[in-house]
Amino acid sequence: MPSYSAPVKDMRFALEALADYDSIAALPGLEEATWDVVDAVLEEAGKVASDLLAPLNASGDAEGARLVDGKVRVAAGWKEAYDEVSAGGWLGLSGDPEYGGQGLPSTLGAAVTEMWQAANLAFSLNGLLTQGAMDAIERNGSPQQKEFYLPRMMTGEWTGTMNLTEPQAGSDLAAIRTRAVPEGDHYRITGQKIFITYGDHEMTENIVHLVLARTPDAPEGVKGISLFVVPKFLANADGSLGERNDLRCVSLEEKLGIHASPTAVMSFGDNGGAVGYLVGEENRGLEYMFVMMNRARFDVGLQGLAMAERAYQQALAYARDRVQGKPLGGQPGAAIVGHPDVRRMLLMMKSQIEAMRGLAYVCAANMDRAARAADPGDRAAAQARIEFLTPIVKGWGTEVGVELTSVGVQVHGGMGFIEETGAAQFYRDSRITTIYEGTSGIQANDLVFRKVLRDGGRVARDVIGAARDFANELAPTGGEDFATLRAALTDGVEAAQAATDWLLERGAADPLGPAAAAYSYLRLMGTVLGGHQMARAALAAARKLQDGDGDADFLRAKIATARFYASNVMPEARMRLAVIRDGADDIVGFSEDRF
Amino acid sequence: MPSYSAPVKDMRFALEALADYDSIAALPGLEEATWDVVDAVLEEAGKVASDLLAPLNASGDAEGARLVDGKVRVAAGWKEAYDEVSAGGWLGLSGDPEYGGQGLPSTLGAAVTEMWQAANLAFSLNGLLTQGAMDAIERNGSPQQKEFYLPRMMTGEWTGTMNLTEPQAGSDLAAIRTRAVPEGDHYRITGQKIFITYGDHEMTENIVHLVLARTPDAPEGVKGISLFVVPKFLANADGSLGERNDLRCVSLEEKLGIHASPTAVMSFGDNGGAVGYLVGEENRGLEYMFVMMNRARFDVGLQGLAMAERAYQQALAYARDRVQGKPLGGQPGAAIVGHPDVRRMLLMMKSQIEAMRGLAYVCAANMDRAARAADPGDRAAAQARIEFLTPIVKGWGTEVGVELTSVGVQVHGGMGFIEETGAAQFYRDSRITTIYEGTSGIQANDLVFRKVLRDGGRVARDVIGAARDFANELAPTGGEDFATLRAALTDGVEAAQAATDWLLERGAADPLGPAAAAYSYLRLMGTVLGGHQMARAALAAARKLQDGDGDADFLRAKIATARFYASNVMPEARMRLAVIRDGADDIVGFSEDRF
Repeated sequence: MPSYSAPVKDMRFALEALADYDSIAALPGLEEATWDVVDAVLEEAGKVASDLLAPLNASGDAEGARLVDGKVRVAAGWKEAYDEVSAGGWLGLSGDPEYGGQGLPSTLGAAVTEMWQAANLAFSLNGLLTQGAMDAIERNGSPQQKEFYLPRMMTGEWTGTMNLTEPQAGSDLAAIRTRAVPEGDHYRITGQKIFITYGDHEMTENIVHLVLARTPDAPEGVKGISLFVVPKFLANADGSLGERNDLRCVSLEEKLGIHASPTAVMSFGDNGGAVGYLVGEENRGLEYMFVMMNRARFDVGLQGLAMAERAYQQALAYARDRVQGKPLGGQPGAAIVGHPDVRRMLLMMKSQIEAMRGLAYVCAANMDRAARAADPGDRAAAQARIEFLTPIVKGWGTEVGVELTSVGVQVHGGMGFIEETGAAQFYRDSRITTIYEGTSGIQANDLVFRKVLRDGGRVARDVIGAARDFANELAPTGGEDFATLRAALTDGVEAAQAATDWLLERGAADPLGPAAAAYSYLRLMGTVLGGHQMARAALAAARKLQDGDGDADFLRAKIATARFYASNVMPEARMRLAVIRDGADDIVGFSEDRF
Repeated sequence: MPSYSAPVKDMRFALEALADYDSIAALPGLEEATWDVVDAVLEEAGKVASDLLAPLNASGDAEGARLVDGKVRVAAGWKEAYDEVSAGGWLGLSGDPEYGGQGLPSTLGAAVTEMWQAANLAFSLNGLLTQGAMDAIERNGSPQQKEFYLPRMMTGEWTGTMNLTEPQAGSDLAAIRTRAVPEGDHYRITGQKIFITYGDHEMTENIVHLVLARTPDAPEGVKGISLFVVPKFLANADGSLGERNDLRCVSLEEKLGIHASPTAVMSFGDNGGAVGYLVGEENRGLEYMFVMMNRARFDVGLQGLAMAERAYQQALAYARDRVQGKPLGGQPGAAIVGHPDVRRMLLMMKSQIEAMRGLAYVCAANMDRAARAADPGDRAAAQARIEFLTPIVKGWGTEVGVELTSVGVQVHGGMGFIEETGAAQFYRDSRITTIYEGTSGIQANDLVFRKVLRDGGRVARDVIGAARDFANELAPTGGEDFATLRAALTDGVEAAQAATDWLLERGAADPLGPAAAAYSYLRLMGTVLGGHQMARAALAAARKLQDGDGDADFLRAKIATARFYASNVMPEARMRLAVIRDGADDIVGFSEDRF
């Protein structure tokens, strides 16, 4: 049975050396989030992840969620685990204390979310969707809605869902048809939604559905969509439950992975219309969604990292145990971890995991800065970084995550194909991450058109410039390791800059070129910015080594892993640049009927 | 329900323009394999694939093979389909007419095998393993064994299996423990074998197991393994069945994919020892296996191509049908195939599929030359090419195949994750192809150590030289298309040559470097040699266009697809070279305890 042990030491290192956690804990309102608190939270969360959630991962996959007599039955142990996580206050970890949250930094929250997702992705989605629903209410709801729903969701008493997709409206939410007809202080909602994660279950007495729908006189397209709260049970002012609302789970999807997460087809209004309450103003639903989506996309980006980490732990344990052939230059009876190609695979995993973690935590640190920095300029700068980095954390993180779960299978040889081993589940589960909350293609377009072209490359230049400055700083550090890191990062930075220049040059005149190049640009930026974090990690490790601060083997491993990334991963940047420059026109020019 | 249509036009083009089928049909003994025969075979096989086998693919996956009361029950329709394929004479398509085969070229056989595998991989494996068992008997068996077994297997009356793997002996067959004790004219076999494809079933009255085992006085390691025929039922001289042999299927594996292909744990000799007959001489079993394995590895390489083709057909149909958002520069209501990033994904599939098909069919053509060319020098040269190309066709073809089935899922967006759509099955099924018949790491080591270093790079130089010569030939062809193709191929050839030189330089002194670089070298060679075939295809298409010979749209698509490959895929070659040169030492130098 595959186990999971939260990589607390790596997480703490990334928080300290990369996310600059000291500066986060110094932000107004986070003064109590000291390192003592961080250590206690990581340790405690690590225990919940490894002892409570991870053991349910394989059994949940085998059993799955089922629709029985109109009710969704979750897997054995799910309800008990949910109650324990709720009771632990984990759902409101970085939530607003006004509504019962613990007010801890999002930076720390990112590490904890990584743990839940690595331990049991299917289980963790319930919390992720509830978080999304809470965000929507917190940002756009009325004071009454906030007071009513948020404390109940923060404590886990009620869960939340996001009802966006319809059969004809997936990536294109403008095509939504679900209708909302005003009736007194509420609306009547009618329509069908698909792909609704935890759309129904019996773990809590109520479920708060956030639903996108159109009012009768709404304009066509994206500007005519409104957002509604549609609870499963209508509730009285004191929170006690009233009538069952007119909505139901029609069916559950048979999926490739995350079997224990019920993916529901939801029908609203079969009997006259479900009661829904408008959130914010009419026709601004999609705008609200997009603001909120940054966080949801970031969390899915963490899933790429989390699945890769889980797959890595499993593959490494197998490689250290399995004996098969004498490794070249090794002893008879030595395990396969000694084979150079197995080592290559494990290093592809380890190094890219650390790069993803570094970039994700840096992005999370910007969330705290954007929310709390004293200076408005700092807040705005942090917000701009978040918006630039989010599609990269999501798109690059999940694409690489899927690739690494495949490498995890490969390390196992034939045993990787046997479900009992567990490696195959990570391969199946992770496959959704490049799709939901916006496909990689959508992330790439978001990055290129909204985040690079819209501001004339200003933020892109800043981010790339920071990496360039850091590479230049590495010069006086000396030593062969840092010469290698510097050369690779400089090369990557040049490729990133050249690709950005190409986008800007082509952009206005010819958006088809940038659209065709978008995916390659997304991958290039992830590779280079991940490499920037790897070089930062190496330098921090070297300084700690010099100061005799910390576990020397651990710190030397950071430097060696950064070197591997520099020589084995960073060359991807030049390839992506070549494909962008020389390849985009061959995509644009390929006539559809030639497929 | 996903359907499959054999890409007969593409296959015929690859046979003619790339595999130089005219020269194959001119070989001694193949005079009757004219183009009329080829066309008839492709058409008829295409019908069997699309009408008989493809419709059983999804149902077979859902039902799977089961062990019920000690008997393996295959999926519904399996037995009937098997009988029809047998009756059609398809199992002996390129088999020796002396034993009931049709004696058609392996080159044509490759195209037909691609069809079976694309239509229904799980079904096709039965024939593949039977072919392997036939090869072992044909090459190494006694005249009596050949006469007795081959006609019965060629007609499909009996099937065959390969019993190699044991729990402690997977990639390392030297660790085999199954014992064979001589007793009169036969041996008594005792031991357990795992991962035995179609190890048991009731579709035929008998199964011919080929089993690797050790005799009591055998030397240790690889030189002490012998090969035995161990039939499920002992047979009388007239072929009528006698006693049940002492072997049984203990259990079937629960796998990630190919659910309808029973993967058995086989126990031999629970009641005193199964009767087995020695094939060839004692202690030469592994040597026989390795000779035979070239063919089996080649066939698995075709699976990478076949799965990718199947996934492509499915993704293309979906992309042409699904409407979601207005494509940039397109019309409202246009399907997603118009989105540049969807087009990029489809082109990644189409172009690499054509490259894989080209290289695989060229390799198959060498099989016919090696077997039949009049001149012994020609035969030897062809054999050397086969040995060089086989690990590339297998390793590169399946790695790319797995990646492309993932792209196929991605094209579907959320629907790709729903099992009903079918895209997920190809993703699951294909995942075994980089593992069985030697993992990609093993293919890479085979290529580097046995195929490049052992002969001092002689064959590698020839193969790369042919690509270089071709690139130079492209010069006078003129036009922008061919200037692009020439530049990309030249660049790839230089990278391949530089990587080969690096291997040769490091090889003798320091095999750890080449071992660490082997996977990257495998991918580099696949990319470049596949690109060579794409450029050849483009030139052949241009000539046909000039001559007004054939469908102009089809021929222009060949040129446009080759261009896409040149600009979007070929840049991988330089990346791999950089990783080989600069990255190998960082793998070798990474200490195991730092993971």
